[in-house]
Amino acid sequence: MSDVASRAITRAPEIEFWFDFGSNYSYLSVMRIEALAAARGLRIGWRPFLLGPVFRDLGFDNSPFVLQKEKGAYVWKDMERQCRKYGIPLKRPSTFPRTALLAMRVALLGAEREWIAAYCRQIMQLNFAHDRDIGSMEVVSEALEELGLPARQIITEAQSDANKLRLREQTSAAAARGIFGAPTFFVGDEMFWGNDRLDDALEYCESIAARG
Amino acid sequence: MSDVASRAITRAPEIEFWFDFGSNYSYLSVMRIEALAAARGLRIGWRPFLLGPVFRDLGFDNSPFVLQKEKGAYVWKDMERQCRKYGIPLKRPSTFPRTALLAMRVALLGAEREWIAAYCRQIMQLNFAHDRDIGSMEVVSEALEELGLPARQIITEAQSDANKLRLREQTSAAAARGIFGAPTFFVGDEMFWGNDRLDDALEYCESIAARG
Repeated sequence: MSDVASRAITRAPEIEFWFDFGSNYSYLSVMRIEALAAARGLRIGWRPFLLGPVFRDLGFDNSPFVLQKEKGAYVWKDMERQCRKYGIPLKRPSTFPRTALLAMRVALLGAEREWIAAYCRQIMQLNFAHDRDIGSMEVVSEALEELGLPARQIITEAQSDANKLRLREQTSAAAARGIFGAPTFFVGDEMFWGNDRLDDALEYCESIAARG
Repeated sequence: MSDVASRAITRAPEIEFWFDFGSNYSYLSVMRIEALAAARGLRIGWRPFLLGPVFRDLGFDNSPFVLQKEKGAYVWKDMERQCRKYGIPLKRPSTFPRTALLAMRVALLGAEREWIAAYCRQIMQLNFAHDRDIGSMEVVSEALEELGLPARQIITEAQSDANKLRLREQTSAAAARGIFGAPTFFVGDEMFWGNDRLDDALEYCESIAARG
């Protein structure tokens, strides 16, 4: 057997996780996904993308949770209950949705690095449990430093033109694949929308892997 | 203890179920709710309402699943998977969403009668598993007759001015309570939106009852 064939067979199956740090239901999935995927022996493909431009392409100039006040009122009630159910802390952000361009660029840069899951949880908790402005360089630096990472160096890399362009491209790719909200999961071409479908997506990914 | 007090204590706790026969996620809940509520010893308050006027009040002239084509494409994929998961038959309706005014009026009339759950399942399956026009008198009659009910008499009652007015009032009540989609569940003032929250709503209802 060639090395390539052997790698193809032994590599764990992947669930793609498309998310934005401003999205409240992405928060739930960021907090849950690493442990759930590990329990099933699945890899996570971290896919940060900008939900704002995707919404704008669909004709919305803000989150549906802001544009529809009835739904918006409900969503925070739902978030309280969901967070209680999962044991996840919640403090409703004073600004919603928060844009967090630098934090997103760092996530893209770190997508294949070992700190990605911890970094995403850190940023998400700063937004949704501590009401900090994750759009600021100060808060992104703090998040990286908390993890013992070289914040300055990572931020410089994240702000390179090449990395900025990649985030725009990843956002276009999200729209091209039919993504209309976050979180969204893909297992191959099978799309699952929303934290409510994370378990189904993981189960499907595992079942595909078992069929080999 | 007075009779009134005794009834108040012994009456099973209620989950209110707000639904529209045109709504695909209401289909899932209609098919599931009776058995799930019975298993927990809960009563169901059947609350048919017209989703169309509620959407129009919110500024939408059709279902979001029609207005947003990306979401619409996803929803039928999701429905296939959800129906497979729950063991519920599905054939995508050739007309969506179907308006079913007479069928809804019959549901309102029957809300407190013993045949309501079976009738709702019958109509829903005609729409979502057999692609029949549940907006027609013929199909509503057929559904009632299948259940051994006096179709003609029920339809006459359902079309009374008083019953028509009640359905308009119930629809206004839905909007007044902050309902923006279907299915929606209420346990007291606690609102739960979507078939994905049916289990949480039932669990909450049971926990409230236990605290009594």
